[in-house]
This record gives sequence, C-alpha cells and structure tokens, in this order.
Amino acid sequence: MKQELQIVGFDFSGLGNEMFYSYNPANQVKNEYSFFKATSDEVNRAVEKAAAAFKVYRKISGVEKAVFLEAIAEELINAGDELISVCSSETGLPPARIEGERMRTVNQLRMFANLLKEGSWVDARIDTAISDRTPLPKPDLRFMQIALGPVVVFGASNFPLAFSVAGGDTASAFAAGCPVIVKAHSAHPATSAISGKAIQTAARKTHMPDGIFSLLYGDGSKIGMQLVKHPLVKAVGFTGSFNAGKALFDAAVSRPEPIPVYAEMGSTNPVFILPDAMKERGREIAAAYAGSVVLGVGQFCTNPGMLLYQSIDDQFKQSLKTAFEQTTGGVMLAPNILNAYNDGLKHHLAIEGVEPLAVSKLTTGNDQSTAVPVLLAADSNVLVDNPALSEEIFGPTSIAISVTSKIEMLKIAENLTGHLTATVHGTDEELPEYIELIDILEQKAGRVVINGFPTGVEVCSSMVHGGPFPSTTDSKTTSVGTAAIYRFTRPVCYQNLNDSMLPPELKNKNTLNIFRLINGDRTKNDIF
Amino acid sequence: MKQELQIVGFDFSGLGNEMFYSYNPANQVKNEYSFFKATSDEVNRAVEKAAAAFKVYRKISGVEKAVFLEAIAEELINAGDELISVCSSETGLPPARIEGERMRTVNQLRMFANLLKEGSWVDARIDTAISDRTPLPKPDLRFMQIALGPVVVFGASNFPLAFSVAGGDTASAFAAGCPVIVKAHSAHPATSAISGKAIQTAARKTHMPDGIFSLLYGDGSKIGMQLVKHPLVKAVGFTGSFNAGKALFDAAVSRPEPIPVYAEMGSTNPVFILPDAMKERGREIAAAYAGSVVLGVGQFCTNPGMLLYQSIDDQFKQSLKTAFEQTTGGVMLAPNILNAYNDGLKHHLAIEGVEPLAVSKLTTGNDQSTAVPVLLAADSNVLVDNPALSEEIFGPTSIAISVTSKIEMLKIAENLTGHLTATVHGTDEELPEYIELIDILEQKAGRVVINGFPTGVEVCSSMVHGGPFPSTTDSKTTSVGTAAIYRFTRPVCYQNLNDSMLPPELKNKNTLNIFRLINGDRTKNDIF
Repeated sequence: MKQELQIVGFDFSGLGNEMFYSYNPANQVKNEYSFFKATSDEVNRAVEKAAAAFKVYRKISGVEKAVFLEAIAEELINAGDELISVCSSETGLPPARIEGERMRTVNQLRMFANLLKEGSWVDARIDTAISDRTPLPKPDLRFMQIALGPVVVFGASNFPLAFSVAGGDTASAFAAGCPVIVKAHSAHPATSAISGKAIQTAARKTHMPDGIFSLLYGDGSKIGMQLVKHPLVKAVGFTGSFNAGKALFDAAVSRPEPIPVYAEMGSTNPVFILPDAMKERGREIAAAYAGSVVLGVGQFCTNPGMLLYQSIDDQFKQSLKTAFEQTTGGVMLAPNILNAYNDGLKHHLAIEGVEPLAVSKLTTGNDQSTAVPVLLAADSNVLVDNPALSEEIFGPTSIAISVTSKIEMLKIAENLTGHLTATVHGTDEELPEYIELIDILEQKAGRVVINGFPTGVEVCSSMVHGGPFPSTTDSKTTSVGTAAIYRFTRPVCYQNLNDSMLPPELKNKNTLNIFRLINGDRTKNDIF
Repeated sequence: MKQELQIVGFDFSGLGNEMFYSYNPANQVKNEYSFFKATSDEVNRAVEKAAAAFKVYRKISGVEKAVFLEAIAEELINAGDELISVCSSETGLPPARIEGERMRTVNQLRMFANLLKEGSWVDARIDTAISDRTPLPKPDLRFMQIALGPVVVFGASNFPLAFSVAGGDTASAFAAGCPVIVKAHSAHPATSAISGKAIQTAARKTHMPDGIFSLLYGDGSKIGMQLVKHPLVKAVGFTGSFNAGKALFDAAVSRPEPIPVYAEMGSTNPVFILPDAMKERGREIAAAYAGSVVLGVGQFCTNPGMLLYQSIDDQFKQSLKTAFEQTTGGVMLAPNILNAYNDGLKHHLAIEGVEPLAVSKLTTGNDQSTAVPVLLAADSNVLVDNPALSEEIFGPTSIAISVTSKIEMLKIAENLTGHLTATVHGTDEELPEYIELIDILEQKAGRVVINGFPTGVEVCSSMVHGGPFPSTTDSKTTSVGTAAIYRFTRPVCYQNLNDSMLPPELKNKNTLNIFRLINGDRTKNDIF
C-alpha cells in the first residue's frame, strides 16, 4: 500500500492519523493509494512557509517566474503515462480526455509564462513631476500591479488537472507573484500528489523559495475553513458547488480582515433558440445541443442546463427527443456526484408539468456507476412557478422550456440570475431583431455565445470565465485567460521614489520594453 | 425659510415630514436651509428610476457620456459664488479652500471625460477565429469592460465637493456607464443641493435619461442601509468612518446577491524619519510635518497621524515641539466631529506613557467650535502595548513615536495594519539601506511617499488612493485617478457575434481609434 503524504513547502508531511483512500468510481473499488488528512499544525506550517516564501518570491523578476511556470509545465509532461492512468482510475474520465486536459494545463502555464515575459500586464503608469506647477508642485507618481500574498486554491472535481493542483488558479496566482497552498479535492488525491510533486520538483529546479507551494489533504469544512480564516492568507480561488463556494465567501468576508474569494460555482448556462434558426436547422441544433449536454458526462461548469425555444410546431421538440435518445451516458467522477445527479433529476421530475422528454438509450459502464442522460421538458409557466428549475443539476441533463412568444422569451431572460454563459442561436437576419435579448444576456453572463455551445472554454486573453452572482462570487473577474492574474494583485503607487530604487517596470529606462502609460500616452519609450 | 427637496431623477421630491437643518459650525447656529429626509418610497423610486435609466445610459457612446461629464463641470462653475458661500457656511472651510476643491472636482470630471473620449480604458481584447484548427476550431472571442448597474454614493463630510455629490465616486461611476444615487452627507445638505442641481441641469441639457441621478437626504443607518440592500443596486462608493463603512460592507456581503462596497475609511498614514535625514534637516522636516498635520484642520484622509523616528538626541523632538506650537487650529466640519476629536485625544492621553508634547498656541474661531492642534509623544514600547494608539483620530493631531533602532522600526512597520499611505524621509545615501522598510510599507499601503507628506492627493492616472484593510474594504481599487472607473465595471466576452452587432469598441474596423489587444498584440489597427 502506497501512502501519499501532503507537501508542506519542500518537505513531505504526515503528522495526522486520519487516513482516506483514493477511489475508483468506474469499478467501485478503493485504489491502492492512501492518504493522511492534514493536521491543524500542518495547515499553519504551510501558511507560515508561504508567508515567508512570499517575501522572496514577490521580488523575483517576471522572467524568473516564467521559468518556474515553464518548469511546472515540463514536469507535468514528464509525469508521463502514470499521470493519465492514475487520474483515469480516480475520476472515471477516459485517458484521451485526461491527455487533452494535461495539454490544456501545460498551455495555461505557458500562457502565463509568456504574459510574464512580455511584461506589460503590470499596467505600469507614470506621471512625471512638474516642479514649477502652481499653486503646488506636481510630484512624480508611478503605479503598477503587485502581488497580494499567499493564496489558497481549492481543487475542482471536474477538472482534475486544469482546475486543480497545477491548474488555472495556481498558475495565475504564481504568475501574479503569490505562493499557493492547494487544498486537494478528495476525489482525486493521487492525481493531486503527482501534480503536486511536479510543482515541487519545478520549484526546486528553478531555485524558488521553500514554501512557495504546499499541498494539503482533508475536509473543506475543516482544513479548508482553517486556511480561509488564517490571517496570513490573502485570497482564495475555488471551483465547485454553490454551497461550498458561498460558505468560503461568507467565512472570508467575516474575517477581522476580509479577503477576496473567487468562487466559480457553476451555472445553468441558458441557450436561446430563435424561430428562424429553429426552422432552418432545428435538427442540427438539437443534435449539437444534445452532444454539448452529455459531453464529459455533463460534468462541465459551462454545461447547457436550460434551452428556451418558441414552440411553433412539434418538430423541434421531436428533434430534441430523437437526438437525446442517441446520446451516451457514462461514469461520473465520484459516487456522491452521481447520487446528487440522480437526486436532482428526481427533484425536477417531481414538479408538476416537468416531463422526461428523452432518456438516453445507450450507456457505458455498469448501472451502479453510470449516469443516464435525461432531457426534461416543460412549458415556460412551469419555470415561472418553479424558479428552482433554473438551478444547476451537475451531470448529463438539461431542461427544454417552450415559450409562446418573443416577449415571453425576453421576460424569462430578464428574470435570469447570473450565469457563466448565455447562448443564442439565430440566423443573420433575425439576430438583429433580438438585439434586446443579447443586451439583456450580456448583463446576466460573463460570456455570450452566438450559434455555438458554451462547453469548450478557450484559454486566451479575451476569455471571460466568470459571471454575475450566483455563478461566481466576483463578477469582475475571470478564472480562465490572462485576465485571471488580476485576481491576485493590487495597485501600488510610488511618490518621488529614486529611480535606482524603483522596480524595473517603473524605472526611467524601459529595459523590460513594456507598454507603459506615461503622462497619458501609451508607449514603450524611456523617460529622459 | 428655504426648503430644499431631494432630487429623484428629473423631479424634485419631498414626501417625508421629518425635517432637518443645515448647520453653521463656525457660528454654531442653524443656517436658513431646511430639508426633508427621504421616505422609503422615495428611496425605492430613485433606485427603480436608476435601473430604468441604466438600460439607456449603458448603451450611450463614450463621447456622449463625456459631454455629460463636461456639462456637470460647467454647471459647477456656473454655480458661482453661491456654492462657495453656502459651502463655507455649512463646513467652516475657508472660501479659498472650497474654490480650490471646486476646481479639483471640475478637473476630475474633465479627466474622466478625456478618458472616455480617448476610449482605450475599456481594455478591448480580441482573439480572432481559427476555423481550421484541430482538434477543435477556435472561435472568435472579444472582451471589454461594461458597466455594472446603478451605484450608490455616500458623500463624505471632509470633501463637500470633491468626494461628495459630484465628486470622484460619482464621476467615475457615470464614466463607467452607471446611474448614481447619492446619499447626501447631513453636514452639508445645501452644498449637496447645489451640486445635485448642477448634475440635474447637466443631465437635462445633454439629454440623459431620467433617473441617471438622484440625491437623497436622510440617515445612513436608515435610507443608506435601504439603498445598499436594494436588489437593483449593484455597487457602493463610500468615504467616511471605519464603523459606517464596515457596516455598509457587512450589509452588502450579506445580501442574497452580494455586491462590492468601495469604502475608503481613512488611516493613520505613518511617517518614518530615517536618522541621517533627521540629522541633516530635522528642523525642516518637523516644520513641514506640523504643517501637514494641521492642514485643513487635520481633516484629510491622508493626514499623517503617526511619526516614527530613531531617538538619537533630543534635538528632533524639540524641533517637533517648537514647530507644532506654532500651528493654528480652526473650526471643524461639524460639532460631532469636533467632539470625536476631543474624545480621541482624551482617550490617547489617558494611556500611560503618552505625553502631550506640544499644544498649538494659536487658534482661530471661538473656543466652542475650534479644534486645538495637539502633538502627542510616546516611546515605541507604549505603542506596542497599546495598539489602539495607531488608530486614527480625525483632526489636527498626530503622535510622535521614538524607536531605539532600525530593527525596531522595521518591526513596527511589519506590524502595521493597512493604510492609505506610508511615508519615508531619508537621504539619498541612507534610503537604499532601508529598502526593506520600503518593501514592507508597499505591502501595507496604497501609496508610498518619499521625502514628502501624504496630504495632497494628485488626480491622475498613476494615483492610488486606496490600500489594504482597514484603510479600505477593497485594496484592489483606488477612489482617485482614472483607475477608479474599474470599480464600477466588469468584463464581458462575446463569442462569434456578428461584426454588425458588436459594440463599436470591438468591431473589426477600429473607428474609435483605441488601443486593443488583438491576438496578443497591442495595436490600433483594424482587423481585416
């Protein structure tokens, strides 16, 4: 039996005696990997080490940080097939999907490395002195983004690599200049151990300070809460359920010193089908929608959980039914996730007016471990009377809501809460007639998708993976893409600091060759 | 008797029957202006109007918003001498100071107008499609900042123009695209009425939607709380005391949908004097420090409330005493502020080891209305034993703390809570030896000032008027300077939206001639 210990800085740690096992959701057996939950002392030690590491790491150049991020990417690749097979055994995800997710994770790290090497992200601003201004001289003022401090990251169940130990939250926090303490998700502890060791190895190889990274196992309600409440922790990244994310948020804002919690808590991601598009390519839309709903057994934050269409005839509904019956279910990430899925379906189906429009006829795996895709249907008045229908069921299901008119469609849009995404399918001719719908949806979601589906979150500068509450706790941020770095920074202004003592980003000579806003002009020029 | 009613959109309103008066703190008499407090209905009406106005205002071009801001600036100038004399009668501030503050307010509005006319502030980012990418095509993604929704602004007592009705919070919220509801500060209601009418007139003249601005009178704990809890309000700007700001923050994060509160709650703004600077120009520093402490009767958020110096001999302490005895007190903004000042002094003086080093020998005004500048002194061990000594007393006082060594100075810096500013006086030779001090201070403050004093907050792109908690509730923002606009925006991403339907900032043709990040390159080019 292999025992995996948590990582506290450069040391492996294992003071606790509460053990738990990695679990195989497909075979429904324990894996050979066992783990100790972190003790309260280990939590404190990880945070104190992170605070000490911060003093060093915050002063390291962007290029050196980039080398560290690239080294993590390389170690993740070096983890080879073991990472894939271990991860698959813990999550039930197919190896090809995990290999794809590893490359996404590697590319995320490299994207932030490139951002650091380019360097302009610090938003350097300089207003030079005017010593003879009246009535008062103008001082020299120089502004840039600096790191917040130690960050706690909660690994997500549904992306065991890309939103977990070495995922987007960790990559963006490291890029910002913050040490990271990860609370591993209990559904993939061995995957977390391999990723954690990759970071630890990269940190050693690139001479990062001890404590820049720690990996802790245990319960969110216990060690997770201890981490969030620790005075030396300055921000939190989280992807998971509403209840867990909101509990962390409430704890963080109730601290003597409140700190930001970036909790991405999922959403229903409504999809609106406009009449002409439905007439022109209803069958095609239905098929693509069904594919998006069951992609990865429906275990994506951007899974389209609600579809709204104007009921002109029964043809589109029939197409949905046909398409959905041909989908395939599969093993879910963990038994409790499968149970929650089945409970969610039961809850929705118990509501009068909700029908099970289609049940997938094909599944993989056995009955005990497999989620069966189900498409629900209801008329809009049922939704209006039962707002709970618009709440997410995590898994391969969605509800198709028929509405009677454009006006009703707009009204439903207006009453939506916050979502990560909102999607509209329409022809080029009818979309401008629905500009009001798009106008409403951009106020309800972080990303508005036209004639596509929300699954598939591109990792790039223009991505917003975020949205108004309750999809996240901070609509002003994104957890994917380069802008994610600003979750872990704040601006500072230096007044009349000697050039020799200024950080390189703000010195007169622009040796880093970054864009700076100098007296109102965006330029790469030096100051003379 | 002139009765001033609150402004609800384009209408004057006055449903309540609870009346209060403008008060003259210098003469200690009621002014001739009387006001009605807003009713709960008026509060709701203002918010509903703001939400309706938001639908229109958020779609108006940046140039049109700039015209509105410039019109407000013009109306403030048109308010002429009446604004000055009324404001002086309510605040005890001298006319010259108020005239200066009006120009600052006007310049703030014009600064945001210029930011909108230039346009690049929206942080437009475009990643163009790669339709033949494998395994999946890359969609077209376009990112920009959009307005949050109706904003509530609480006017500050100490800047009746620049941080009040038409002040920085209002200007930046309007610039972001948000309607504003101002809760007027009860200490300058008639000044608020004149400023509010200026905004109302400007809104009419420039054809802004009804409800873009409302001005309400009443108690913070009543109508202020009602505003913060209203579901249609999306953000809050505040400048004032810790207790009031923290109460608003707690209410906002406890809403069913939490919203951001940007509360600037003041700080002690520590000033560190290094030994060589003290030797070289101790008398000069002492005089400038005394001047900064009593500037505006000490009623600035950036007032230097604590000075730390290494006690080598008694000469510097003697210089402080001499300089401070020559300062002048004056009328404070309101009787309750004067009372709090005197209570704060009593509290500090009751602590063993705190001595009244100097009391100003000169004052203006009469005994009942005038604050007398007092310089306190203590050894560092008294501060360590009594952390309450580092809390702000709003008014013309400060405490000089003698420390025994550099190590002790660093330790005190390390234990500081968050402040708006931190200042260091040192010679060019010794400053580099104290790089560790500056390094600590930039983690404790929004602005680090070298060889100057923190009073005097320049309005420009590089300013940070903010800082770690408890100086503000959101260290990631500033309430002064162009970056203040981002308090009231969030990013949105459009995926595969037709060029004709995209906002002008994101269309292929860059007609606005703004900087955009296109596939990683910052450019003003069109997309072909």
